[in-house]
Amino acid sequence: MPTPDNFQTENYELPETEAGEVLLKAVYFSVDPYMRGRMNDAKSYVPPFETGKPLAGSVVAKVLESKSNNFKTDDMVIGMLPWRKEMIAAEKDLKVIDTTTAPASYYLGILGMTGLTAYFGLMQIGKPKAGETVVVSGAAGAVGVVVGQIAKTLGCHVVGIAGTDEKIKLLKDQFNFDEAINYKTTPDINKAIAAACPKGVDIYFDNVGGVISDAVISNINFHARIPLCGQISLYNSTEIPMGPRIQPMLLTRSVLMQGFIVSNYKDQFPEGIRQLAQWVKEGKLKFSETIEKGFEKLPSALLGLFKGENTGKMIVEA
Amino acid sequence: MPTPDNFQTENYELPETEAGEVLLKAVYFSVDPYMRGRMNDAKSYVPPFETGKPLAGSVVAKVLESKSNNFKTDDMVIGMLPWRKEMIAAEKDLKVIDTTTAPASYYLGILGMTGLTAYFGLMQIGKPKAGETVVVSGAAGAVGVVVGQIAKTLGCHVVGIAGTDEKIKLLKDQFNFDEAINYKTTPDINKAIAAACPKGVDIYFDNVGGVISDAVISNINFHARIPLCGQISLYNSTEIPMGPRIQPMLLTRSVLMQGFIVSNYKDQFPEGIRQLAQWVKEGKLKFSETIEKGFEKLPSALLGLFKGENTGKMIVEA
Repeated sequence: MPTPDNFQTENYELPETEAGEVLLKAVYFSVDPYMRGRMNDAKSYVPPFETGKPLAGSVVAKVLESKSNNFKTDDMVIGMLPWRKEMIAAEKDLKVIDTTTAPASYYLGILGMTGLTAYFGLMQIGKPKAGETVVVSGAAGAVGVVVGQIAKTLGCHVVGIAGTDEKIKLLKDQFNFDEAINYKTTPDINKAIAAACPKGVDIYFDNVGGVISDAVISNINFHARIPLCGQISLYNSTEIPMGPRIQPMLLTRSVLMQGFIVSNYKDQFPEGIRQLAQWVKEGKLKFSETIEKGFEKLPSALLGLFKGENTGKMIVEA
Repeated sequence: MPTPDNFQTENYELPETEAGEVLLKAVYFSVDPYMRGRMNDAKSYVPPFETGKPLAGSVVAKVLESKSNNFKTDDMVIGMLPWRKEMIAAEKDLKVIDTTTAPASYYLGILGMTGLTAYFGLMQIGKPKAGETVVVSGAAGAVGVVVGQIAKTLGCHVVGIAGTDEKIKLLKDQFNFDEAINYKTTPDINKAIAAACPKGVDIYFDNVGGVISDAVISNINFHARIPLCGQISLYNSTEIPMGPRIQPMLLTRSVLMQGFIVSNYKDQFPEGIRQLAQWVKEGKLKFSETIEKGFEKLPSALLGLFKGENTGKMIVEA
């Protein structure tokens, strides 16, 4: 588990803005579980962060000065950018966002990677049908609340797993989940899942891994689908985590398990954003953000993800 | 691990053959790893065997007497039938086989469940492309040799894993595998796989599970596919087998893992049989059988599967 001591802030001198570049002032920083993986020196879908260089992620920023024909002063833009208060960026790394359709922060969440991750993982791997049972772990997280609401919209029985009574209440009252289980206080998670899913589990959208997943998989149905979106319970493991072998269960029940990262579906992003925006407009998708204020909050906001401190999308406002 | 003491032979009186039924004399019995699962009282894709009743499986038999319009004396038929020397069967449970196209025993192997399991697992889940690397565990088993040869026919680099030097030699000399690894004598299975698969593993056709699978999965490529066909190394476990959790690896490399049973593809059996028969005719698929003679050999033939005594399809001739 990293600590605030693993982070440091440095001053740096801004270079001149050159042709094809813009000077940006950061507005919102996205803080995401996958960033923990980038702190390890390991082969993954994104290269590791480098020691001594700034972390980076999705950032919404305002154009202060433009030497690009594509952007003008005061444009709001989004891109994969370093954690800096002000920075120079190349025009090819930025896209303008329309803040009249939705608040700027939504582009880091429901209309950004978060919403698209929920949408493509559920639709392309989970392939939900009305009447099926969908279980979501990390259900009160940014992706989880979107998955649950899409599944409800499509007529599924939706069960969320989360770790505080506050989150359980939110899932049921605000996000329309049929059932929600507090894995920290339930005496037998396996039985609790069986009780909440009387017809078994057809889709398990997995954000957490570990013993919670063991319990869901022991209730899995024939021909079930398991989109693997995150394994947050294991990200801070220093040894290879051990557990019951799952292949016999997947085999005898003809279960599909598929790891994914949202960029696998990048060719279909426009369709995904259109559908998500439509559901938001129709009131079918509510979205929750935790916004911490102040650039200096970035390390604690990131570490907070692993302590379950956020509900919904975690964002830091510069 | 079951022993011969778990089996017994009983005499029984044949009832009269009634309308719509035929009297059969068994010719060939199929002996398969999945039968071990039916000896446990557990939820699976086929119901458990019942204590005190005969085991059952795919059987090729000859019609001795027919009270069905669909069959005549001396017809060769196939069906899911009990392990009996002679028996009455209902016409709906039988299909005639054409023994002029291929020897009768082939209908228990390359043109039966064995060939179809290899074909659909590899084609529908593995989706091989020319130039990809395919690893097969239990490679010298009935399904394994077919998977390897299909993959070679499609232009893949094919690596087999098996447990004796004799099998390794067979895989390379007779079945055209590019590389074959003896997991019992290789000092480091992980390194051996890495060396045999310089471009990583794109498809892992898994017949065995356990530590061999751990080693293959640690060499798995981004967007790899893992058809789960068998877990023979775990079938005799009395406790839930433990191992390294695989979800983090499947997640970070966008890997698909899919359990299956051949009957999931039953609507496509005619297409599968046509393609397999074509490849057999073209000499692209060689097939190997181990035929034990004598009804009384059934228990030892079945138990022999778990000691790696067979090469290719294990059959008992009545």
